[in-house]
Amino acid sequence: MQLSRRELAVLLAPVPGMARPVSLNEDSNHFWVNRRKLRLTRELIRQWVDQYANTLVGELILNVNAMRSSFPSKHRETWFSGFDPNGGAGQAFLRPLPEQARQTWFEWIRCAWQANEDKLDLYEIWIPEIRRQKMSPWVSVRMNDLHNVDQEDHPLHSSFWQQNKHLRRVTYREEQRDKALDYSKPEVRNHNFRYIEEVCERYDFDMLELDWMRFGFHLPPGKENPQILTDFTLEVRKLLNLWQKKREHRIGLAVRVPSTPTTSLQLGMDAVGWARQGLVNYVTPTNFWRTVDNNMPIDEWRKLLPKGVTLAAGLELGCNAFPGSVGTGGKAWQSNSLETARGSALSYLRMGADKIYLFNYMDSDTSLDDVSQYPPLLKQLTSPTAARRHVVTYKDTWAPGEQTNHSLPVTLDTGRYAAFRLQTGPKANNCRVRLGLSQSNVAVRLNGQLLPTGKLVEPPKPGPNLSVYEYVAGATGDGANVVELTAQEPTRIEWVEIAIP
Amino acid sequence: MQLSRRELAVLLAPVPGMARPVSLNEDSNHFWVNRRKLRLTRELIRQWVDQYANTLVGELILNVNAMRSSFPSKHRETWFSGFDPNGGAGQAFLRPLPEQARQTWFEWIRCAWQANEDKLDLYEIWIPEIRRQKMSPWVSVRMNDLHNVDQEDHPLHSSFWQQNKHLRRVTYREEQRDKALDYSKPEVRNHNFRYIEEVCERYDFDMLELDWMRFGFHLPPGKENPQILTDFTLEVRKLLNLWQKKREHRIGLAVRVPSTPTTSLQLGMDAVGWARQGLVNYVTPTNFWRTVDNNMPIDEWRKLLPKGVTLAAGLELGCNAFPGSVGTGGKAWQSNSLETARGSALSYLRMGADKIYLFNYMDSDTSLDDVSQYPPLLKQLTSPTAARRHVVTYKDTWAPGEQTNHSLPVTLDTGRYAAFRLQTGPKANNCRVRLGLSQSNVAVRLNGQLLPTGKLVEPPKPGPNLSVYEYVAGATGDGANVVELTAQEPTRIEWVEIAIP
Repeated sequence: MQLSRRELAVLLAPVPGMARPVSLNEDSNHFWVNRRKLRLTRELIRQWVDQYANTLVGELILNVNAMRSSFPSKHRETWFSGFDPNGGAGQAFLRPLPEQARQTWFEWIRCAWQANEDKLDLYEIWIPEIRRQKMSPWVSVRMNDLHNVDQEDHPLHSSFWQQNKHLRRVTYREEQRDKALDYSKPEVRNHNFRYIEEVCERYDFDMLELDWMRFGFHLPPGKENPQILTDFTLEVRKLLNLWQKKREHRIGLAVRVPSTPTTSLQLGMDAVGWARQGLVNYVTPTNFWRTVDNNMPIDEWRKLLPKGVTLAAGLELGCNAFPGSVGTGGKAWQSNSLETARGSALSYLRMGADKIYLFNYMDSDTSLDDVSQYPPLLKQLTSPTAARRHVVTYKDTWAPGEQTNHSLPVTLDTGRYAAFRLQTGPKANNCRVRLGLSQSNVAVRLNGQLLPTGKLVEPPKPGPNLSVYEYVAGATGDGANVVELTAQEPTRIEWVEIAIP
Repeated sequence: MQLSRRELAVLLAPVPGMARPVSLNEDSNHFWVNRRKLRLTRELIRQWVDQYANTLVGELILNVNAMRSSFPSKHRETWFSGFDPNGGAGQAFLRPLPEQARQTWFEWIRCAWQANEDKLDLYEIWIPEIRRQKMSPWVSVRMNDLHNVDQEDHPLHSSFWQQNKHLRRVTYREEQRDKALDYSKPEVRNHNFRYIEEVCERYDFDMLELDWMRFGFHLPPGKENPQILTDFTLEVRKLLNLWQKKREHRIGLAVRVPSTPTTSLQLGMDAVGWARQGLVNYVTPTNFWRTVDNNMPIDEWRKLLPKGVTLAAGLELGCNAFPGSVGTGGKAWQSNSLETARGSALSYLRMGADKIYLFNYMDSDTSLDDVSQYPPLLKQLTSPTAARRHVVTYKDTWAPGEQTNHSLPVTLDTGRYAAFRLQTGPKANNCRVRLGLSQSNVAVRLNGQLLPTGKLVEPPKPGPNLSVYEYVAGATGDGANVVELTAQEPTRIEWVEIAIP
């Protein structure tokens, strides 16, 4: 390809925000839900950006859809398609919802409807404002959203999904992921490509993200030929090349994909291949939802991706130790705290991540359990000398038939031992090992060193629903650490962390 | 580095054997044990090579040591150090052995002793003979052999290991792997480096292999700083550079390492880094022992290693489905057959392996359960149109604290399903799914397609210690396949394979 001097200048122009370490995703209905009691104005919408200015956030990633679109699309329903603004909470459209949820839904959908009546478009307002505040505006398209698919008539769904059951990924079972659309079908690819075209026409963003991790499953089991999504990615890249000329600035292509190269490829997402072919220039490996995965092979991703491709470690909001785990105080789900998120971030930056990508870390509702930590999170997530916690969690997305694993829970008989490997980022002194145990008669080692008897401490948040014992240790290893625990009586282990003061 | 024309010619000379797809390891005492009743002659030793001439084997990899040396070393004991050739089976040296084993041991050690008395050196005879028969002779050094370490006074052990308990990897536990020597200690590195120097002085080989998979554990838990073995590898490479000049031909450096890049690195073996730094030019990921691992990410290894580096998929002799599994006829361990080894080989060649590396596939004793298949194995291992079987097995080597996994066994309640992912190499028609099941009331799918009711068949070898049902299917997928099984009654699954006729 021959480039003119002007085209070259466009491609080589510095990208705003790249020097800052955090990218942050805002989902497509969070703003409506949280601001549902307000009659929105241009200024109220604009103000949302202010909280991210002069923080660690370099990219604000605006997700514009689930199955439906958050802007009024020509090609698929928007939130308020079929909604009656005067119909109240009891209207037919909302009837599939649980009764106690209908009023909230009525309000947020009316809020979106009203904004549209008032000619207010979130993204049209946010995109220039994000640039003005020296960040980079992106648009993110969810490629296969499956919220609430257990209910066929739920108001979140598109008619395309409802009416084309034959286009679903698995037709012989009824689990959530079975109901994803099947990208081996041209109708599915066209449906989504048309929407992407519309997004490009409407909005002048720096980067388009294809969010393949909502919900991660796009092809039938055993038929995950990676060429299918590679061809699709190529078409999207070509489309962006056209818009790049029109907009007179570079438009990048980003992807969110499963947390390991193997799982990603086995699910048909050849992120490494896309990057090596120059189709994508920003890759975010990530868990799907219930917990951050603190064991992603970010160092391996870094080696596999070309140098010029930005590697972001994707952090989910949750911090939960194993499938079905119950957290401190009996909670079925718990969010990260600033300290646990910092642990993940520092560990991944040391392993070679260029960026930390925050997903579901929004300013309210879907946010930290202690939302007062949100402003400090945005400014101090990556502070290398501040307190941090490195927690054993698990990987939640696997290809069909792939061998799954998780470290916890473990039940040990007397005399048996278990070992846990934790990536803890830069070396630090005076660390503490914290264990959630059914009983305290155990011997604990960190990197071979026997630790003094642990003491019972207040359960941390997030933490386990068992007693927590803390063991004073010396310095962490540089990078990885091994905690070994030998039971002197039968012991159940539900939580393992290394805390750095 | 400036190279003379002559040095360049040496480096660019074609390597014999590279065009053939198989490399084969001969361990350091198998020949003595098997030929123990013979008074060896130069000709009897030479003849061992004949069976590999004009087969698929391109490299014969001569392992020369365990803890002791198979040649009379200046730096460590040989098999017969401390042995009395006139002392009979009851001598003190052999007393740690079980009584029924002593006569065999007396004979094989005497055989090695007698050969030495007769000035016969296996490797001095084999190396030129291998070249004469158009194969490439290598020498392989085991870096940390742990056979029989449960017995401190076993006649296989070196005094260096016996007398330096403080140089062991873990001193607070007594498991086999704990007793490995600790390469973070200079004494351990020196002990092994001196031996490698001696190997270089004595023998004129094409390639030196550092066999880090005997037994795979070289550093203390949590202290697996990869720089330690990288520095060691650099020293060995420098040594080979010197010998390359003297021998006037290229001398390569090969390594055997754990089956995934992550496990290898977490155990302190940065094979990818060694290859990228130009220190090694042949890498063999492999399981340790009890079973071939049919799920190695060879495609990922291929992407991580530079193009000029040869990638070999390491096949162990065993074919066993899960830790503790019992095979057809109640066998605690079973070997691959020609058909299962071919399945592994074709799958890995398709995934990007340049070579198939056979370990423990020797001509007798440690060999195929059906040793009559050995000659055909050497000629037909990679025949693309011959029958083959792709079997679900497991990975047996993990870093301390790494999350382990294995697909089998699975116990399903009624209505539950399990999925298995199998790499099956090039697409093939008329395949069969074979399952080892506690009962046959199950629904089976291959890549989404429901298969006709299975029929009870003779248990294959290798196979499970449960009834085997065979399901007629169509073509395999190109590469990966997913077998899904739904239980209509509670079902235990112990074996999953795809057989191609």
